[in-house]
Amino acid sequence: MRLKHVKGAEEIVENSKYVIKDYTEHKGSFNKLFNNNNPIRIEIGMGKGNFIIENAIKYPNINFIGIEKYDSVMVKAIRRLDTLDLPNLRLIRMDAGKIEEVFDHEIDEVYLNFSDPWPKDRHAKRRLTSPKFLNKYKTIFKDKEIITFKTDNRKLFEYSVISFNTQGFTIENLSLDLYNDDIKDNIPTEYEMKFHSKGFPIYKIRVYK
Amino acid sequence: MRLKHVKGAEEIVENSKYVIKDYTEHKGSFNKLFNNNNPIRIEIGMGKGNFIIENAIKYPNINFIGIEKYDSVMVKAIRRLDTLDLPNLRLIRMDAGKIEEVFDHEIDEVYLNFSDPWPKDRHAKRRLTSPKFLNKYKTIFKDKEIITFKTDNRKLFEYSVISFNTQGFTIENLSLDLYNDDIKDNIPTEYEMKFHSKGFPIYKIRVYK
Repeated sequence: MRLKHVKGAEEIVENSKYVIKDYTEHKGSFNKLFNNNNPIRIEIGMGKGNFIIENAIKYPNINFIGIEKYDSVMVKAIRRLDTLDLPNLRLIRMDAGKIEEVFDHEIDEVYLNFSDPWPKDRHAKRRLTSPKFLNKYKTIFKDKEIITFKTDNRKLFEYSVISFNTQGFTIENLSLDLYNDDIKDNIPTEYEMKFHSKGFPIYKIRVYK
Repeated sequence: MRLKHVKGAEEIVENSKYVIKDYTEHKGSFNKLFNNNNPIRIEIGMGKGNFIIENAIKYPNINFIGIEKYDSVMVKAIRRLDTLDLPNLRLIRMDAGKIEEVFDHEIDEVYLNFSDPWPKDRHAKRRLTSPKFLNKYKTIFKDKEIITFKTDNRKLFEYSVISFNTQGFTIENLSLDLYNDDIKDNIPTEYEMKFHSKGFPIYKIRVYK
């Protein structure tokens, strides 16, 4: 994704009540932060936030944490959240590479949406569905490891299906053209709306271990 | 596939030197039939035969057996074979449902190309990539179970990926748009040429266990 610099983004993110600043201090006890024992689902790479915000609105009895690396992207979600009061939603501005240092056996499901494809072979390890990352997620899950992944990038999807398979995940369901299937429960991301409207197929897979 | 009746097809098939009539008698010793110990690969549902014939021409040190249920389809392959002398190719006219009664630990690889999708859920067991069929193939393989599957049918492909995954196969490679990948070694079937020329994506997967 090409990033535009957004003036004051860092400060806006820093001051939002939705953003967890001291996130490493909650390791293993994020349920206390939410004041309940509801399941916690995270989206790694939440971008502008439509997916995680709509989920939080639709499912008040599930807690959601959106993770995003860039202030300049996260600030778009925060602006929208100004007008909303969602006690079941929090955001963390961080690099996903350190995710295992933040959560400890407390996550119910991980969403990966339109992740950076890192098309060059030598960058394969940076893909969020690489065996390296799937290994990082292991200790963050409470019980079953559940991952739902959507993308419009064919090569990334092919790579990811193989990665899930070789890492011992069971494929629960799979769509190679999401918008030609039954998608009444689908919540799109900003990217997804854009790419779908251009006629590209959207790929989706849900796996567990 | 809608079948046209071809006059005299049964007799032509019966009399072809390529067709193995007493096929159950060779169980466990097909290598003797070929007079060598080269690997044996089979195509279940060879249709009009382009795939298996071109393979036999291209790889003289591999033995190929094409299996087809219908005389009226197989007869097209036999007409073409009239002008060819391929000692490494044989055909069997039979229903794939009895495959485990024909081969015994002697097959190197199975090809499934553009198999009948059996779109209704209640017919799922009839799909050649169903757990039921994957189970049937087990005892026909010499060593590693290797299956290569191509189709233009999205739902059948999705079903098949899940079936291979849940039955413990490792995905070696996968293409969701074969003709936009490197396909210098690809040998198309008659169906494949037709569907590709209409602009439909061709899906391919190779798995092993």
